[in-house]
Amino acid sequence: MYRTHTCGELRLNNAGQKVTLAGWVQKIRKMGGMSFIDLRDRYGITQLVVDESASHDLNATAEKLGREYVIQATGVVAERTSKNSKIPTGDIEIKLSEINLLNASQTPPFTIEDETDGGEEIRAKYRYLDLRRGPLKKALELRHKMAQETRKYLDGIGFIEVETPVLIKSTPEGARDFVVPSRMNPGEFYALPQSPQTFKQLLMVAGYDKYFQIVRCFRDEDLRADRQPEFTQIDCEMSFVEREDVLNTFEGTIKALFKNVLGLEMNEQFPRISYADAMKYYGSDKPDIRFGMKIAEIKHLTGGKDFAVFDSAEYVGAICVEGAASYTRKQIDEITEWVKRPQVGAKGLVYIRLAEDGIKSSVDKFYSPEDLTAIANVVGAKNGDLILILAGDKKRTQDAMGTLRIEMGNRLGLRKSDHYAPLWVYDFPLLEWDEETQRFYAMHHPFTSPKPEDMDKFYSSNKEDIAQVCANAYDFVLNGTEIGGGSIRIHDSGVQKRMFEVLGFGSEEAEYKFGFIINAFKFGAPPHGGIAFGFDRFCALFGGQETIRDYIAFPKNNAGRDVMLDAPSVIDAAQMDELFLKSTVSK
Amino acid sequence: MYRTHTCGELRLNNAGQKVTLAGWVQKIRKMGGMSFIDLRDRYGITQLVVDESASHDLNATAEKLGREYVIQATGVVAERTSKNSKIPTGDIEIKLSEINLLNASQTPPFTIEDETDGGEEIRAKYRYLDLRRGPLKKALELRHKMAQETRKYLDGIGFIEVETPVLIKSTPEGARDFVVPSRMNPGEFYALPQSPQTFKQLLMVAGYDKYFQIVRCFRDEDLRADRQPEFTQIDCEMSFVEREDVLNTFEGTIKALFKNVLGLEMNEQFPRISYADAMKYYGSDKPDIRFGMKIAEIKHLTGGKDFAVFDSAEYVGAICVEGAASYTRKQIDEITEWVKRPQVGAKGLVYIRLAEDGIKSSVDKFYSPEDLTAIANVVGAKNGDLILILAGDKKRTQDAMGTLRIEMGNRLGLRKSDHYAPLWVYDFPLLEWDEETQRFYAMHHPFTSPKPEDMDKFYSSNKEDIAQVCANAYDFVLNGTEIGGGSIRIHDSGVQKRMFEVLGFGSEEAEYKFGFIINAFKFGAPPHGGIAFGFDRFCALFGGQETIRDYIAFPKNNAGRDVMLDAPSVIDAAQMDELFLKSTVSK
Repeated sequence: MYRTHTCGELRLNNAGQKVTLAGWVQKIRKMGGMSFIDLRDRYGITQLVVDESASHDLNATAEKLGREYVIQATGVVAERTSKNSKIPTGDIEIKLSEINLLNASQTPPFTIEDETDGGEEIRAKYRYLDLRRGPLKKALELRHKMAQETRKYLDGIGFIEVETPVLIKSTPEGARDFVVPSRMNPGEFYALPQSPQTFKQLLMVAGYDKYFQIVRCFRDEDLRADRQPEFTQIDCEMSFVEREDVLNTFEGTIKALFKNVLGLEMNEQFPRISYADAMKYYGSDKPDIRFGMKIAEIKHLTGGKDFAVFDSAEYVGAICVEGAASYTRKQIDEITEWVKRPQVGAKGLVYIRLAEDGIKSSVDKFYSPEDLTAIANVVGAKNGDLILILAGDKKRTQDAMGTLRIEMGNRLGLRKSDHYAPLWVYDFPLLEWDEETQRFYAMHHPFTSPKPEDMDKFYSSNKEDIAQVCANAYDFVLNGTEIGGGSIRIHDSGVQKRMFEVLGFGSEEAEYKFGFIINAFKFGAPPHGGIAFGFDRFCALFGGQETIRDYIAFPKNNAGRDVMLDAPSVIDAAQMDELFLKSTVSK
Repeated sequence: MYRTHTCGELRLNNAGQKVTLAGWVQKIRKMGGMSFIDLRDRYGITQLVVDESASHDLNATAEKLGREYVIQATGVVAERTSKNSKIPTGDIEIKLSEINLLNASQTPPFTIEDETDGGEEIRAKYRYLDLRRGPLKKALELRHKMAQETRKYLDGIGFIEVETPVLIKSTPEGARDFVVPSRMNPGEFYALPQSPQTFKQLLMVAGYDKYFQIVRCFRDEDLRADRQPEFTQIDCEMSFVEREDVLNTFEGTIKALFKNVLGLEMNEQFPRISYADAMKYYGSDKPDIRFGMKIAEIKHLTGGKDFAVFDSAEYVGAICVEGAASYTRKQIDEITEWVKRPQVGAKGLVYIRLAEDGIKSSVDKFYSPEDLTAIANVVGAKNGDLILILAGDKKRTQDAMGTLRIEMGNRLGLRKSDHYAPLWVYDFPLLEWDEETQRFYAMHHPFTSPKPEDMDKFYSSNKEDIAQVCANAYDFVLNGTEIGGGSIRIHDSGVQKRMFEVLGFGSEEAEYKFGFIINAFKFGAPPHGGIAFGFDRFCALFGGQETIRDYIAFPKNNAGRDVMLDAPSVIDAAQMDELFLKSTVSK
């Protein structure tokens, strides 16, 4: 062992002990013939001192050191004269008698400090240096803790972790699969799993009752910001359960994580809201309920006043922005421009201001103070508040209201990263009609069960009826981010067959793609359901961050490249030949 | 929830309670108007009774049930008249008042019993049914426990689990990589990791100090029996350590697993043996030391007696088979044929028998009883024992002796699966010369450090010197199976450069393949080392089995196929086009 202690553990009560530390040189200062070295390892920083009385050799070695050199240093723990209360070892320093240079270092391309001067690209290339910085180390330690606590909790309530295969079969439904050519089966390919969905259902058929896995998944999508081609899920499934059982089980899991990872006791039941209400009140299927600012439908209060914009609109919605009556005309104009951006897509913005000098709006021509007050009452506005109103067709305007609500939450500082507002959303639509291909797509996946009470509609020959069927599905939302999603699954082979029919699969196609699971359901499938959590994002939110990249040790960039490895890369022609493949592009 | 209790938990003290169970019908018996149903779930089996007094409906439902039907059953717990001491619930039964048929089942293609009538192929195809059987369920439960305990122990001593990427860069050195075409980077490929070796070393460079991961790895090899294209490793790495630190840390881990998973206290230090001694005494680099039967070199006792076979042999080795003097001539002939098989490759077998009536051998023509007694003394043979002797060139004959030793251990029943004999083997050769390609290959991988004392030889310009360099590497062997292997790594970029040179990589080639790690070593790499355990085989050995397939939920067959999924499979032409690929075989 190269050390007797780590750089994070020595205290005043170690004074007088002879110790050996090993680590990286964070910083060197010279003062009056003495050298002060901050030595860093995973556990902390300890100050080393080479004083004037030290040997010539020791001084010469200290002279040679630079940032990020790796050394082993031996000396005696002593009380510091000027203590540093910012670090746990700040009361002591080590009076060195020996330095053993273990490895030199070139000057790193950016500073290894909590706040670094390195840009994103250079830090990605030298990821192993970026990972030395405190914030990234904390992020990965948090991730480790999250995984450990998840496993401990689920193991404690009888879940069994089962590893499912990574080399599976391609079933091109939903997102694109990554594929892996098989050398031993020429012309054939494995696929990498987008999730272990079918495997966990097979494990339920096999009687494993309570399954989980923290598992890598893969999706060959065009990457948006903060999406990764490989990502990690906490994947779970249970047998003989109904929705309430699943929600209660994982609410318990999440509360245990809050408590054991963040020290937060969450004693109340998490709020629950239907998809329909989430859209109605928050204009989003993943409401951020850290703040109120609920959306009110006010169409009924706007008619008969000859205001064509509202009269012709299918939907008129309003939010009350507390205390924002003081917004200047310029600020409101800026918000108006903001809602008109294509990403929001509103045609314009109407406001009502409840100021000291009375109620005023941008539509005073059409609406009397009494009309405006009626609206203010509905949205719960009081003196000093600002009401913002959008109008248009229902779906798009609800979305726009939701986006505006979040924006106003941001502007008012209502979305604090250390405030956690969990929420369950349930009763999602089962299917989505696609005009282009003229067929239904599963909102979730083809194994999601319709709600029992909608079963008649599900078997209807009428497209409109089918479109209205609710799924027995649920999402877990934290601070406006969807962290988990799941459902009660179909366990009846007849219902599953109907689902494939509704999705427009011929029975041959269904058999080819999902034959193994259709077959499995013929041999006694239990009622079952489950959920999967996006682990990367879960960790990021627990760490108070919105981006996941710092919570992944070796992430890829937006083009799906690992810039440190320089992967993907061209492979040998011989390797291509072995795989019976030819590339149609030349590199 | 579909149940109040599981099928494994009701006892006599529950008598009188009304309960609801859910599970699979294991068996139905009718006796005198009563139906007895064995209901099975993951937790056990409980007997249900429908007696004559039950309603017509209930009787009719019971009548319909068949093997593997899924039911929910409600009734009152009652003491059994004829108890079954073989199962924990054997004192009670449930007098049913209600059966709710949750799902029917076709007759399964094989019996769902501990001993099944199904062949390997059919059980693989219906893996979800095979997984219902007790032995497989126990195997996966053991695996879960092993993983949990490994994590708990390593977390407890400060290791951090870090997930490393699955989509990495192809570095065609060693075994073949599986590759993944990148759609977003046309003509380029990711590779799947054969191990996270370089990543864990980068994590050490990044200062993570103690890393582990239970991680999937991939190797596109021609499959031998009991090899899987994807397999799981317990992968570990530590900084600022020497060999002893690594061995002690993981000896602690293994002992914790023995204790917490199998209830076995291992208080002694695990034996350690050098590679050279392992070959000398056991003819194997992974000795099974559950039994003695050490190999003795006896060349020096055989000369000058005109026995040409021994005189011309580079090496003569002997083992003493205890109590086997009673073997018949026919038995010995059979062993002689056995050692002549190409898999063993000996030219013949000489024996010495220490029977009641004196010492006899198959070479009495050449050796006197005194000569034979001298040999008997060296191998430690006593009256009643049989000595078996092979001769030939050293390397091959040692191997053959090792194989013969294991065979005799099997024949004598000395290799009990519930007896555990752990062993560390160290000081492996660093390099292997390949005559065909006229170059050295790394025995382990190119990051393994030479032993410090062999550094001069490592830099020698003489091939013979280099061939003699020992690696600072070690294996963990359990019952004759290599379960883990690791080494102290190179952390000096100069030594690493020399290694690439010795392996015959041009500096450009080394840069292309391993540039990122060569670079990383320039920025302060700490001394480090680690180990990786083959988790599938570790679990199998803990379960007392030699084959790993039962310890993997969804394994592949020897052709690398998942016969349940029917994967790999052909993919759409459109998918091929998107990947800029053409297959050179038609399917």
